[in-house]
Amino acid sequence: MQLGMIGLGRMGANLVRRAMRDGHECVVFDRNRDAVETLVGEGAVGVGSLAELKDKLTAPRAVWVMVPAGSITDSVIDELAETLDSGDIVIDGGNSYYRDDIRHAEQLAERGIRLLDCGTSGGVWGLERGYSLMIGGDADAVATVEPVFASLAPGVDAAERTPGRDGEPTPAEHGYLHCGPSGAGHFVKMVHNGIEYGMMAAISEGLNILHRANIGADDQASSDAETAPLAHPEYYRYDLDLAEVAEVWRRGSVIGSWLVDLTAAALVESPDLAKFAGRVSDSGEGRWTAIAAIEEGVPAPVITAALGSRFSSRNLDEFADKALSAMRKQFGGHDEKPAAGL
Amino acid sequence: MQLGMIGLGRMGANLVRRAMRDGHECVVFDRNRDAVETLVGEGAVGVGSLAELKDKLTAPRAVWVMVPAGSITDSVIDELAETLDSGDIVIDGGNSYYRDDIRHAEQLAERGIRLLDCGTSGGVWGLERGYSLMIGGDADAVATVEPVFASLAPGVDAAERTPGRDGEPTPAEHGYLHCGPSGAGHFVKMVHNGIEYGMMAAISEGLNILHRANIGADDQASSDAETAPLAHPEYYRYDLDLAEVAEVWRRGSVIGSWLVDLTAAALVESPDLAKFAGRVSDSGEGRWTAIAAIEEGVPAPVITAALGSRFSSRNLDEFADKALSAMRKQFGGHDEKPAAGL
Amino acid sequence: MQLGMIGLGRMGANLVRRAMRDGHECVVFDRNRDAVETLVGEGAVGVGSLAELKDKLTAPRAVWVMVPAGSITDSVIDELAETLDSGDIVIDGGNSYYRDDIRHAEQLAERGIRLLDCGTSGGVWGLERGYSLMIGGDADAVATVEPVFASLAPGVDAAERTPGRDGEPTPAEHGYLHCGPSGAGHFVKMVHNGIEYGMMAAISEGLNILHRANIGADDQASSDAETAPLAHPEYYRYDLDLAEVAEVWRRGSVIGSWLVDLTAAALVESPDLAKFAGRVSDSGEGRWTAIAAIEEGVPAPVITAALGSRFSSRNLDEFADKALSAMRKQFGGHDEKPAAGL
Amino acid sequence: MQLGMIGLGRMGANLVRRAMRDGHECVVFDRNRDAVETLVGEGAVGVGSLAELKDKLTAPRAVWVMVPAGSITDSVIDELAETLDSGDIVIDGGNSYYRDDIRHAEQLAERGIRLLDCGTSGGVWGLERGYSLMIGGDADAVATVEPVFASLAPGVDAAERTPGRDGEPTPAEHGYLHCGPSGAGHFVKMVHNGIEYGMMAAISEGLNILHRANIGADDQASSDAETAPLAHPEYYRYDLDLAEVAEVWRRGSVIGSWLVDLTAAALVESPDLAKFAGRVSDSGEGRWTAIAAIEEGVPAPVITAALGSRFSSRNLDEFADKALSAMRKQFGGHDEKPAAGL
Repeated sequence: MQLGMIGLGRMGANLVRRAMRDGHECVVFDRNRDAVETLVGEGAVGVGSLAELKDKLTAPRAVWVMVPAGSITDSVIDELAETLDSGDIVIDGGNSYYRDDIRHAEQLAERGIRLLDCGTSGGVWGLERGYSLMIGGDADAVATVEPVFASLAPGVDAAERTPGRDGEPTPAEHGYLHCGPSGAGHFVKMVHNGIEYGMMAAISEGLNILHRANIGADDQASSDAETAPLAHPEYYRYDLDLAEVAEVWRRGSVIGSWLVDLTAAALVESPDLAKFAGRVSDSGEGRWTAIAAIEEGVPAPVITAALGSRFSSRNLDEFADKALSAMRKQFGGHDEKPAAGL
Repeated sequence: MQLGMIGLGRMGANLVRRAMRDGHECVVFDRNRDAVETLVGEGAVGVGSLAELKDKLTAPRAVWVMVPAGSITDSVIDELAETLDSGDIVIDGGNSYYRDDIRHAEQLAERGIRLLDCGTSGGVWGLERGYSLMIGGDADAVATVEPVFASLAPGVDAAERTPGRDGEPTPAEHGYLHCGPSGAGHFVKMVHNGIEYGMMAAISEGLNILHRANIGADDQASSDAETAPLAHPEYYRYDLDLAEVAEVWRRGSVIGSWLVDLTAAALVESPDLAKFAGRVSDSGEGRWTAIAAIEEGVPAPVITAALGSRFSSRNLDEFADKALSAMRKQFGGHDEKPAAGL
Repeated sequence: MQLGMIGLGRMGANLVRRAMRDGHECVVFDRNRDAVETLVGEGAVGVGSLAELKDKLTAPRAVWVMVPAGSITDSVIDELAETLDSGDIVIDGGNSYYRDDIRHAEQLAERGIRLLDCGTSGGVWGLERGYSLMIGGDADAVATVEPVFASLAPGVDAAERTPGRDGEPTPAEHGYLHCGPSGAGHFVKMVHNGIEYGMMAAISEGLNILHRANIGADDQASSDAETAPLAHPEYYRYDLDLAEVAEVWRRGSVIGSWLVDLTAAALVESPDLAKFAGRVSDSGEGRWTAIAAIEEGVPAPVITAALGSRFSSRNLDEFADKALSAMRKQFGGHDEKPAAGL
Repeated sequence: MQLGMIGLGRMGANLVRRAMRDGHECVVFDRNRDAVETLVGEGAVGVGSLAELKDKLTAPRAVWVMVPAGSITDSVIDELAETLDSGDIVIDGGNSYYRDDIRHAEQLAERGIRLLDCGTSGGVWGLERGYSLMIGGDADAVATVEPVFASLAPGVDAAERTPGRDGEPTPAEHGYLHCGPSGAGHFVKMVHNGIEYGMMAAISEGLNILHRANIGADDQASSDAETAPLAHPEYYRYDLDLAEVAEVWRRGSVIGSWLVDLTAAALVESPDLAKFAGRVSDSGEGRWTAIAAIEEGVPAPVITAALGSRFSSRNLDEFADKALSAMRKQFGGHDEKPAAGL
């Protein structure tokens, strides 16, 4: 089928490529002309405006928006509301807040245009592995775009069948799912990312414990007077090869996962991860998941702690730490120790 | 090669089966005679005592101990110290505390017997999938037992090769790793389980957020006077099919993992998980990982929170909760609300 | 000065009493006629409607609203916007969300009415101890109402002077503070309550650790097969008198605080807190503080964990716990243990 | 009565001063002769060795040890075991691990010497405020030393009586408590410090949230592409005076506490806490409390998070953070953002 694509960054361009591999005709737009030309060179139809994009597509049109969430998505939706016709379908495949989907869907519905929100997981590997697609919105619109979803998804063969399932595989078994009404796709994707934060933090904390497993070999006498020395240094004398540890976890272990696979790859590239400073960004979904948990009254200590670790990696707890030192100084006369005396 | 196995529970019996499939000759012992007979029926040599087990094996013997960690392991090690000969090898494949390995290794070394500690991950699926093996102890002993480790491990083909690796696959790429001296294997396995706790909690928290995503459909007026009603019930009106959600995450998503696979299977069996009460056991490794983090001075908020969630699932925070209610009553005159008014 | 009071519950009635003790003339309204009559019996002027309340007060009027936050506050503000005159002042002393203050202030400003948001801490003891008042809004309006704030606050003598301060005591030293523009008062009060959650949880967790300090005296052999028995039961053989422990912390200790005072009182009443079930309510501020931390990108692990503990005290983590048990069953064949085997 | 004091640092010297004020005769020793001379100048009897200290005291002797916990305490206990007579009493007033008390008590009991472990809270202010004393060990020995405990404690008048108590005040109401057998005093003190960690962290987190309450005034457009900009900057436009906020919380609020008093003092000295770097030490009790919670199977999320925040204040999570960045780079091609782009 025909698919319009707005936004040809890392994700958008690869979605187009994967769709074209399966025979879909893609009409592509980006403010960056070079990005358009690159995909034209690979078989896409390039356009220079949304009006032109509309003209190149046959109604009912399916237009995928793959731009940074927030104000940019807002303005593209505004423009599409003006440009497209009743019956057309907009798919927001970015990392939009699901509450924005509800607003955007209402805005487009006033023009008869249907919005599908599509949480798209897979990152830079999606071109080869396929994308996990979590979709919200009108069922008829989902049915119309289904051939594209099926092409972008990894397909049934990407995993062994879940025990207990039989009969014709469901769309979820192909790798795409109509989760519910507007916002449901991005809601599920949001929680997916919250889980991702938690998993990543679990792995990272574990690696850090392994990384420090040899501190018993350090001179205990030199340790900070404010920190009790190790009572049993003999229990912390393991000099571990983390790249090999991550590798052994890839086969047969309970924590086997794509994130462990990627960790193993990262540790092959750089066993001490020296090229990273450890300033970890967060892009919204983790925050929104934590807020959803709070509003639902659901404890989410792991996901929330994972989010907080990212904040503290960027030193956003500095003032709190200063306040702790100030209190210790007040009641105990304790001066801060210099950095050398960890 | 020949392998002795002591302990024929779920794990021990399957280790024997997998070893025999690859041609190893297994001499098996368990206090439970039926367990021995079952494996004899599958080709193992059954024995009725450790002395007999010793007699059936050719020196240097390799004896795998697969019994519950703690006092039972202690007594088996005691008995093996009396029974085996210098040069023999004991493999503790259970979930022993790595500090006990150090003690057991010293105890056995007095008799010239070598101890390998072998963290064994894979659960009831290991028979088919193979086991991830994390080994500590003497390198020569590891080399002697290597044919068995190689058979029990999943093998190179169980995962695609990690980018950046080339040449002959390392043992870790087969699924077994000599991590370091005594205790190193169980140390790495301990941290593996700590990560497992964190990952499991991340997934569970996420599912709980999805499970409650429809609370906006409840009558807000009836909500507890002590809990602010939802400011925006319209954002919590998703009635999600969790089995399908878990399924769609199995292909192409960032959180793709064996634990998500198992979650998907569990939700097919029981979409509301009604057969579980939610009392979650913990068996030591999570606690030990959290303690190691504390002793190393390493923050491990996710792993520690995951451990705490298990404690609170067993209501071990009850007195603390009562103290909170007591304080609220004291300063605000707040009475507890009955359970209906969540 | 004259003060109107709308809402004569536990807090509102005591505010009136404390104001009257200092000579202020109070005009009081509540839907509950008995509540009005009670205060009339103590010297207040009772009215039956907001219109009447307006008539009894001389412009510029000061009307304190002390009703449950949310929709009730909304409707009172709506009615006051219709009733009062330009130049009048409304004080919202309840636990309103500071974002609602901003909205209410704009709404009232259209009529020339000024809103002060006043976070009011002190609970049922405020009548005797005085209230800590955190105020947001227009400085002129604060100055107009200052005589009332000064009467309600505890006064300078309620605490020793902070070292380093000299000169005339500031309003904060009296116990009331103009924090900033609209919402600033409730923002500071919100964070105050977030801190309160954290402090309460710290005390409760500590008491729980003391409460369980005698578990080493239990029969270790009977412990759950899935939980490692205590390695050193000899370290957990303290049968502590918690009421006495809380009492000793009241004098000279670093954690000396009103919350410890109240805890000591609760433990005198009920040493085992048996009259509480441990279902802990939360009323909004804790959630809002946690959300503010997330939106600011600030880690708040303690406050957030304290909030989560309240959720789990109401069993809102049940589905997550079931999911954990389900996963354990899947990979390890582990059945849940019955409740007796904690 | 007579009291020997070993260790004349900040705490030891003030204990001597407070005991002497109440008429006790103090015999003091420290390796640092100047410290001895200073107290001799204030009325103490100085000695140059433990043997001399023994000679100056009448049996049964009471010798208070106030030296850094760990190996120094070990060696002093060793020496006292050799020096003192059967029937004498040693009081360990330092921050020893309660498990060491059990060992020390057994060691001294072999010589007929009794050990009291005495958790001593109060810091540098104890001289004036008195000390909160949590005592473990033999009841007869406690009775013998009681006059000293009573002098060091703050006394009944230091706080209003707890409602519900009547009759003769208990020792706890004076500020000292015999908690139980050996180790019980330091166990209770350990948990006290765990609570202290939690309270301090709660206050610090709250201050940090207030400190960042004005970020909505920043230019949102310049924010990091990896961090969603504030959806509602209008809600974060409060420029708060934290010294005044801490001050207003000192009177009448629910969080009123000595720690808030000290925080208020620190903020008067340095409103932006600029003289602190935010590297927060930990000295053992927090770690031990967290470990006790784990071994008891008790969730202690707040205390544990407070401990973890101290670790991360010293950047001990750096490798974990690098691992997170490495994973993000692997799956999403995300590069770390430079520090300017928080």
